[in-house]
Amino acid sequence: MNTPKVGILMGSSSDEPLMRAAADVLEKFDIPYEMKVLSAHRTPFEACRYAEQAEERGIEVIIAGAGFAAHLGGVLAAHTVLPILGVPLPSSSLQGLDSLLSTVQMPGGIPVATMTIGKAGAKNAGLFAIQILSRKDPKLVKALKKYRQDMRDAILATEL
Amino acid sequence: MNTPKVGILMGSSSDEPLMRAAADVLEKFDIPYEMKVLSAHRTPFEACRYAEQAEERGIEVIIAGAGFAAHLGGVLAAHTVLPILGVPLPSSSLQGLDSLLSTVQMPGGIPVATMTIGKAGAKNAGLFAIQILSRKDPKLVKALKKYRQDMRDAILATEL
Amino acid sequence: MNTPKVGILMGSSSDEPLMRAAADVLEKFDIPYEMKVLSAHRTPFEACRYAEQAEERGIEVIIAGAGFAAHLGGVLAAHTVLPILGVPLPSSSLQGLDSLLSTVQMPGGIPVATMTIGKAGAKNAGLFAIQILSRKDPKLVKALKKYRQDMRDAILATEL
Amino acid sequence: MNTPKVGILMGSSSDEPLMRAAADVLEKFDIPYEMKVLSAHRTPFEACRYAEQAEERGIEVIIAGAGFAAHLGGVLAAHTVLPILGVPLPSSSLQGLDSLLSTVQMPGGIPVATMTIGKAGAKNAGLFAIQILSRKDPKLVKALKKYRQDMRDAILATEL
Amino acid sequence: MNTPKVGILMGSSSDEPLMRAAADVLEKFDIPYEMKVLSAHRTPFEACRYAEQAEERGIEVIIAGAGFAAHLGGVLAAHTVLPILGVPLPSSSLQGLDSLLSTVQMPGGIPVATMTIGKAGAKNAGLFAIQILSRKDPKLVKALKKYRQDMRDAILATEL
Amino acid sequence: MNTPKVGILMGSSSDEPLMRAAADVLEKFDIPYEMKVLSAHRTPFEACRYAEQAEERGIEVIIAGAGFAAHLGGVLAAHTVLPILGVPLPSSSLQGLDSLLSTVQMPGGIPVATMTIGKAGAKNAGLFAIQILSRKDPKLVKALKKYRQDMRDAILATEL
Amino acid sequence: MNTPKVGILMGSSSDEPLMRAAADVLEKFDIPYEMKVLSAHRTPFEACRYAEQAEERGIEVIIAGAGFAAHLGGVLAAHTVLPILGVPLPSSSLQGLDSLLSTVQMPGGIPVATMTIGKAGAKNAGLFAIQILSRKDPKLVKALKKYRQDMRDAILATEL
Amino acid sequence: MNTPKVGILMGSSSDEPLMRAAADVLEKFDIPYEMKVLSAHRTPFEACRYAEQAEERGIEVIIAGAGFAAHLGGVLAAHTVLPILGVPLPSSSLQGLDSLLSTVQMPGGIPVATMTIGKAGAKNAGLFAIQILSRKDPKLVKALKKYRQDMRDAILATEL
Repeated sequence: MNTPKVGILMGSSSDEPLMRAAADVLEKFDIPYEMKVLSAHRTPFEACRYAEQAEERGIEVIIAGAGFAAHLGGVLAAHTVLPILGVPLPSSSLQGLDSLLSTVQMPGGIPVATMTIGKAGAKNAGLFAIQILSRKDPKLVKALKKYRQDMRDAILATEL
Repeated sequence: MNTPKVGILMGSSSDEPLMRAAADVLEKFDIPYEMKVLSAHRTPFEACRYAEQAEERGIEVIIAGAGFAAHLGGVLAAHTVLPILGVPLPSSSLQGLDSLLSTVQMPGGIPVATMTIGKAGAKNAGLFAIQILSRKDPKLVKALKKYRQDMRDAILATEL
Repeated sequence: MNTPKVGILMGSSSDEPLMRAAADVLEKFDIPYEMKVLSAHRTPFEACRYAEQAEERGIEVIIAGAGFAAHLGGVLAAHTVLPILGVPLPSSSLQGLDSLLSTVQMPGGIPVATMTIGKAGAKNAGLFAIQILSRKDPKLVKALKKYRQDMRDAILATEL
Repeated sequence: MNTPKVGILMGSSSDEPLMRAAADVLEKFDIPYEMKVLSAHRTPFEACRYAEQAEERGIEVIIAGAGFAAHLGGVLAAHTVLPILGVPLPSSSLQGLDSLLSTVQMPGGIPVATMTIGKAGAKNAGLFAIQILSRKDPKLVKALKKYRQDMRDAILATEL
Repeated sequence: MNTPKVGILMGSSSDEPLMRAAADVLEKFDIPYEMKVLSAHRTPFEACRYAEQAEERGIEVIIAGAGFAAHLGGVLAAHTVLPILGVPLPSSSLQGLDSLLSTVQMPGGIPVATMTIGKAGAKNAGLFAIQILSRKDPKLVKALKKYRQDMRDAILATEL
Repeated sequence: MNTPKVGILMGSSSDEPLMRAAADVLEKFDIPYEMKVLSAHRTPFEACRYAEQAEERGIEVIIAGAGFAAHLGGVLAAHTVLPILGVPLPSSSLQGLDSLLSTVQMPGGIPVATMTIGKAGAKNAGLFAIQILSRKDPKLVKALKKYRQDMRDAILATEL
Repeated sequence: MNTPKVGILMGSSSDEPLMRAAADVLEKFDIPYEMKVLSAHRTPFEACRYAEQAEERGIEVIIAGAGFAAHLGGVLAAHTVLPILGVPLPSSSLQGLDSLLSTVQMPGGIPVATMTIGKAGAKNAGLFAIQILSRKDPKLVKALKKYRQDMRDAILATEL
Repeated sequence: MNTPKVGILMGSSSDEPLMRAAADVLEKFDIPYEMKVLSAHRTPFEACRYAEQAEERGIEVIIAGAGFAAHLGGVLAAHTVLPILGVPLPSSSLQGLDSLLSTVQMPGGIPVATMTIGKAGAKNAGLFAIQILSRKDPKLVKALKKYRQDMRDAILATEL
């Protein structure tokens, strides 16, 4: 695989089945990516360093999935000006309300662009990363339009 | 002003005092923008058309602020592959919980990148738009880093 | 089946088992209906066109079931003055709180009449559609009263 | 005023400033209505009797606004097959979350069509009542379309 | 069984497995009771009549269990000055938050004494009914104290 | 005043303006009561002792109003078999959701009969105390019916 | 085992599988502890006495796990100045939102240091107890740092 | 002032009026402290460095107050094994529900001991810090008991 353009981070290896949906989308669009487990709390140095070095390593967008008090997106955002996409995961008893609010309610100055809780959010993070990349790659605009068309066709072909 | 690169839409003119924070940030970074009132429900044709024509008009990112059952971001997202940033506004009795969930919980396939409820979210939407634009404009990367540095210096200068 | 008077729309084919309850009620009252998958986000043109053409096609009431950030009811309501009945579906981690608020909290000017979350709501949407139709069809008033009587009798016959 | 077609009920006279928005809409469309204070809990006989007699008195739609554990819509719905529109009011410390859930979460069999919490919901109840009445009065369809057009024009005329 | 002193009502026969816990407690204390399915919405006349006649039939306390928009307690309370104990049941997607708020948030003037959501609440309603009855029956005070002592002993005998 | 039959406790003197509504009702019905500030956390011995001695002092019902994590009702209930009525007060940022859940969600075995959040709940606690006392005092049944009648008349006399 | 330094209390023996996580951590760090079932409501005397005597028995920190309206932490805190760590357990329909708010929202003056809902919280309570004990035992500081290092290494060794 | 033993950090200078309550308590107990504005997001290096160096600087406990998606406590906790006390502040539209969940719902391994939302929580954080320090300073145990006694006396002296 080529130099990754998107980094998919998650706070725990148990998040992988949900976060895989982001990777699937990126693969479908032929976007090179890397996927790592890095925790804001248990590997704080590595998480910060990842964010600090991402830009010079060629990463353009970082996707961060986390559950509970999901700080990963915010911690990464504090250490880079790359766009951070946060995916709240429903790991705890509160089924993602905690991770949603921990991710989206960033104070003014340091945004984390937040997606749907769970697998749908991971998928959407992959798509939104491509939408960002498409701003300098017209081929991706075209590919996104085709992807939309395919979704539309699939729905219109539904028979109840 | 030059051709706008960012469109700031809001569902009602009463949203302007909050959404102005997005415009303030864009001005600070010299990003040309336009700001309009367009409602997903009361001006649906115009809202859809705005989204459909935005790309060819040179818009790169759309910021959509709305309260109550905030459908504006989702409706725009359905009609363009440009990145949509949603700002939930606390207009109703539920103080933004309704607009947050209506904006962020997009089903898989059509993302809306969601920001903090209210004025902090509008400011962050402005910053995130610049982060997206910075992916093809290194000057913006530099400007974002300076902005961060200034925030940092302001905090460190605080005397309690 | 005769020309449908009620349109039952849902955002995804996976909603069918819940939304079927609306169809069951309409069948019981011999109301012709049609049932379709149309998404506010993935088939926006078709959803809007459905709403725009419904009146001239003889549709009198539209039932819209959707989960997550449920925009379907609101989008349809923006494109027709026919009564729209929204059924919030518990598809996401938040178990319908998101779809409830996205459906019911419509801003002033464009109502969506919202039902209970889930299957009970689909059933009630079917009944409410009949209540609307009964305003010009006294036979339906009578049938509704009989339906009520039957429910009552079933409860009173319960032995614990 | 002619025989009222719409009954606007509210649980307390303190609800009048919010529920007035329903009456304002009906007046704008020249729909005769009546407005009364009747409580599901404090005047249960009168509330039930109102519902039971409404149909023969010529009422076509009942709008019920209530706060706290808002039972008014459900109690009325249990005593008539006329369409009941529920407006949850933010009277208590919970700012309408209680009245919303008490109104919308009706069990299967007895629907209450629920509107937005508060004044926007009262306005929308008025509009939805007209949408129901329009099913047998094409003039109202036309009037509703004009109302929509006026809302649209007002928004498009907004200058920020 | 002697003339019942406590009426246990529930909105649906599917509530019986949870509401049975109230009956179990009453049996343990030798309090005659009756248990019925009566719905505020589907058998409104019978529910109201039950409340109106309960006092003269010798009922001293009514326990009302219901899910969704749980109006049963409030409707009964409106038709009698006997103490009503409400048990919110977790029947819907919202797992009892809806029934809790619909039961407890009664407006000033008509109380419903509300218990825990679900089976623990049904049990506590049985106990609270006995606490009320004990105000004129010292034997019940003694029996309640013994019951407390037994609970205490059971816990203190726990080995982990 | 005669020996008090009802004890009104509250966790803080700042709760008095809300809890006063319970006393007002008791006065209206000529029920002797006492009102004290006792905190489950700051005066635990006195709170427990109050509960333990209440029965022999002639208290028949205890009303406990508290905000935040409202443990007062539960702590009193653990130390007496007298009926405890809990009034959740909206003292904290969460506006009573915390005190409601802390009061109502008692585990099986030790009930606290919970009222509406805030002033309406204090009033209802007073009324419910009288409903309990009325089980052995027919004059109170009559007085409660008159109170209901007066409420009803007041509403029916309302002119909008 | 030596004189226990940490007391782990829980309101019910059914809490043991979750609270075991606290004990596991303490064992790993060789901290002597005791684990008991004591209920704030069903064994109030024993719970209060435990708190009152804990200090002189050599207990330094108390961990209290409880579900529903979780008063155990607050009741213990009212009877000792030892640090109390509260673990909200998801025992009821509300999945721990009730126990979280009942534990954390202590009024000013009597703190309960609250942990995550459920098993993660029990584990964290064990760790936080050690952090407190480490303030007078440098060996524990070292052991905590090693524990952190091990967590970090485990994450960095993850292969996706 | 002597070498500080407690560090009070807050994410913004606007938090000072609430967080001052922690300082007031520490002063009352003659505990040297320092108070600083440091943001997890806007001054991430300084916040991390503060945590890393706190132990060697003689800090024993860190109190962290923050609003919105309150990551400060968690970020500090990731960089030190000193006890971190989190105070959720009600700065945003959600009135502290966001900061509460962001602070308390820490994943297993890295605890943040969480206090009440707002000013009561800041006060309690000060008290809990002293409870921790008291584990090696019997004079503080005595002072805490006196403080409790004073609170008790103040309540018992209340006249309503």
